[in-house]
Amino acid sequence: MPSRKIDHTEIERRLNDLPGWALTAGKLHREYRFADFVSAFGFMASVALVAEAMNHHPEWFNVYGTVRVDLVTHDAGGVTELDFTLAVRMDDLARGHAVR
Amino acid sequence: MPSRKIDHTEIERRLNDLPGWALTAGKLHREYRFADFVSAFGFMASVALVAEAMNHHPEWFNVYGTVRVDLVTHDAGGVTELDFTLAVRMDDLARGHAVR
Amino acid sequence: MPSRKIDHTEIERRLNDLPGWALTAGKLHREYRFADFVSAFGFMASVALVAEAMNHHPEWFNVYGTVRVDLVTHDAGGVTELDFTLAVRMDDLARGHAVR
Amino acid sequence: MPSRKIDHTEIERRLNDLPGWALTAGKLHREYRFADFVSAFGFMASVALVAEAMNHHPEWFNVYGTVRVDLVTHDAGGVTELDFTLAVRMDDLARGHAVR
Repeated sequence: MPSRKIDHTEIERRLNDLPGWALTAGKLHREYRFADFVSAFGFMASVALVAEAMNHHPEWFNVYGTVRVDLVTHDAGGVTELDFTLAVRMDDLARGHAVR
Repeated sequence: MPSRKIDHTEIERRLNDLPGWALTAGKLHREYRFADFVSAFGFMASVALVAEAMNHHPEWFNVYGTVRVDLVTHDAGGVTELDFTLAVRMDDLARGHAVR
Repeated sequence: MPSRKIDHTEIERRLNDLPGWALTAGKLHREYRFADFVSAFGFMASVALVAEAMNHHPEWFNVYGTVRVDLVTHDAGGVTELDFTLAVRMDDLARGHAVR
Repeated sequence: MPSRKIDHTEIERRLNDLPGWALTAGKLHREYRFADFVSAFGFMASVALVAEAMNHHPEWFNVYGTVRVDLVTHDAGGVTELDFTLAVRMDDLARGHAVR
C-alpha cells in the first residue's frame, strides 16, 4: 500500500541506495546544485509534471542553481513509498544536469 | 542606480504600497496562496522568465498551492530597486490567480 | 468510456458550449492570445501539468503571446471525451490571462 | 550588429557547424525528439527562460516528446545572429536529453 508509513530503520536501510538523500526532520531531504537558474528551473518543470501526475508534491526551495527538496506524505504522517518513488524520479531527471 | 542598497526607513515607507509584503530578516518577504499546485507552478514559470530576463532571482519555497518568496540583492548586501521591481512584477503575475 | 470516438454531429453540438473552439481537420482547435510570452508560457506550464496528469497531451504551437492548440485522441482515431475535458481545463486556466 | 539579416550562402555555410538544423522556408529549423513529454517540457522551460532573457522567441510546436523549432528575426526579415545564438543555446540545453 503506497501510503503506509515506513519505519525509521527501513528508511535508513533504503537510503543506502539513494546517495545524496538523508532523513532530516522526518523527511527525505536532498540538495541539488545546477550550473545556473536556467538548468535548475528546467529540472523543476520536469519534476512538477511528474509530481502532479503522482498527485504527490514536494516541499522545495530554490535560489539560482540550488534546489533543496523535502519529501514526506502528510496524510500518512511520515515517509512512504510515494516519497521514495518521487526521489528516484527526481534523481533520474537531474542526471546529466546537476553539477552535484 | 539599481543596485544601491535602500535603507530600512525607506523600505518600510515603500512597503506601504505593497500590501502582503514585509521586511523579514533583511529581505522582502511575501507568501502567495493559490488554489492548487497547477496554478502555483504556472505562476512560478512566468516569474522564472521575468527573473532570468532581469538576471535577478528570487529565493522561493513551494509546497502545493503555497509560494513563499524572499527578495534581496546579494551583491548589494541588502534590498535594492531590483527587489521592488521584481516584487511588483510578481504581484502583477499573481493577480487573478492567487487566492490571497 | 473516455476513449470512445465521438461522432461529427455530436462534436459540433458540444462545441456550442465551447466558444473559441472549432473542429478543424478532425481535431478540436483553438487559438489563445496572451499579452506576451511570459503570460503565454505560464499558461503552458499549468496546462503541461494537467496534460501529464491526464496522460493526454496537446499538439500545440507557440510564438510569443500566441498559443494554438489541436486536441485529438490518437488511440481512438478521433475526438473523445478526453479532448473535451482538456479543452475545458485549458479554458479555465486561460481565464483572466488570455487577451482573447 | 545582431539584427543584420544573414544572406543565404552564409547561412548554409554556418549550418555545417549545426548538425540537425536546416534552412527551411527562410527559417532555421530543427526537430528534437525526447523520450517523453516530461523531458520535452523540461527542455522547453529552460529554453523559455533563455528566449525571454534574449528577448528573442522561437516559433515552436510540441506534441508529447517531439519539439519542432523555427527561428527567424521578424524585425530583420530573415535569419540573424540572434537565431544562431538561440540555436546553439537550445542544442546545449537538449544535450543529454534529446533522444536524437
